[in-house]
Amino acid sequence: MERLDILDVKKTILEDNDADANDLRQELRAKKTYYVNVMSSPGAGKTTTLLRLLEALKGRFRMAVMEADIDSDVDARTVQAAGFPTIQLHTGGMCHLDADMSRQAMAALGGAYDIIFLENVGNLVCPAEFDTGAFLNLVILSVPEGDDKPLKYPLMFETCQGVLVNKIDTLPVFDFSMEAFAKNVALRNPEAVLFPICALRGDGVDAVADWLAGKVEAEWKQ
Amino acid sequence: MERLDILDVKKTILEDNDADANDLRQELRAKKTYYVNVMSSPGAGKTTTLLRLLEALKGRFRMAVMEADIDSDVDARTVQAAGFPTIQLHTGGMCHLDADMSRQAMAALGGAYDIIFLENVGNLVCPAEFDTGAFLNLVILSVPEGDDKPLKYPLMFETCQGVLVNKIDTLPVFDFSMEAFAKNVALRNPEAVLFPICALRGDGVDAVADWLAGKVEAEWKQ
Repeated sequence: MERLDILDVKKTILEDNDADANDLRQELRAKKTYYVNVMSSPGAGKTTTLLRLLEALKGRFRMAVMEADIDSDVDARTVQAAGFPTIQLHTGGMCHLDADMSRQAMAALGGAYDIIFLENVGNLVCPAEFDTGAFLNLVILSVPEGDDKPLKYPLMFETCQGVLVNKIDTLPVFDFSMEAFAKNVALRNPEAVLFPICALRGDGVDAVADWLAGKVEAEWKQ
Repeated sequence: MERLDILDVKKTILEDNDADANDLRQELRAKKTYYVNVMSSPGAGKTTTLLRLLEALKGRFRMAVMEADIDSDVDARTVQAAGFPTIQLHTGGMCHLDADMSRQAMAALGGAYDIIFLENVGNLVCPAEFDTGAFLNLVILSVPEGDDKPLKYPLMFETCQGVLVNKIDTLPVFDFSMEAFAKNVALRNPEAVLFPICALRGDGVDAVADWLAGKVEAEWKQ
């Protein structure tokens, strides 16, 4: 089995994670490295979606993925097998990543990238409370989870600029209304952009990739 | 709309939640109230499963449900509409419940019950770290989440005596192996009992109800 870098991230209790996150964004801006924080419930399809995005953006950007997990390394092995640079971050029970942990992870990852993706710990609660230093927050909500989730996990939807609705191929099987979901998202965040996708088949991923590429370009024009 | 009790639970930083949880269990033992903590990812089907269990156990036990949620009251309204005593607990952003919060909730719920169910916050990470004082921990894992979750959320599966695999009607739609899942659960917790169910249709719920009733009776015989 190919060698996989695994980093045990250290817990940091900084007095001001928000200030540290802003510092990290400035450091990344200086390097023109765009940092994207991807969040979701367990099993909503973060890894599969990231693989599709990597394929869609390949050739346009140099990209890497930092895979956060409490214990396992299955996701980083999947990304590695697809031929993209990755590092497995073990949080040792911690439910989220913050800015300093992101900085530890980037140092261990090494290299020079245009886009670094973070696959955060699968959790709709805690990751939303900690600014990782990312330029863009994405949440993936899968159809089987239900259209009421923005009502129950408000902060997650307030902090994300992009909302990907995954597993739309299963819409006939579940009681999920895209209209109700869009309304619930808008209640929390009227600016959020919704993308219906099926990461497994690749449906809708190009639209996300193009939007993301536009975000990167707009950021460097500022 | 019928009146619904809503409690804003207060955060308690007790030095020793484990000791407090043991105290709560003793208090509940004295009252012969069996406390069951139900945990899962967002959208795995906690409320629907609880409604089925309440129906299956109705007449044998006096039961109530405490519905924890960060912000909304949709779940407690569902339980109330089905005719069972309930209280909505708002955690105000907190990602879990602990023993003292359980005690606050039971005081606000009032009444005398044989079984009190807690629907914990939808989260596979943090709730597993806090003993609520329950006699029994259940985790619900839904088929769309994938069979690798015990590898990624080890503590949750270590702390649960019962593992309910929900939405088995969608097995043909998802790449989920019950055999692989059972193996992954056994790695974390060889004692855990697995129940494949479809809460929406009611399949497999009677087996869970009978097992739970047996647990209650066994507890009072000790």
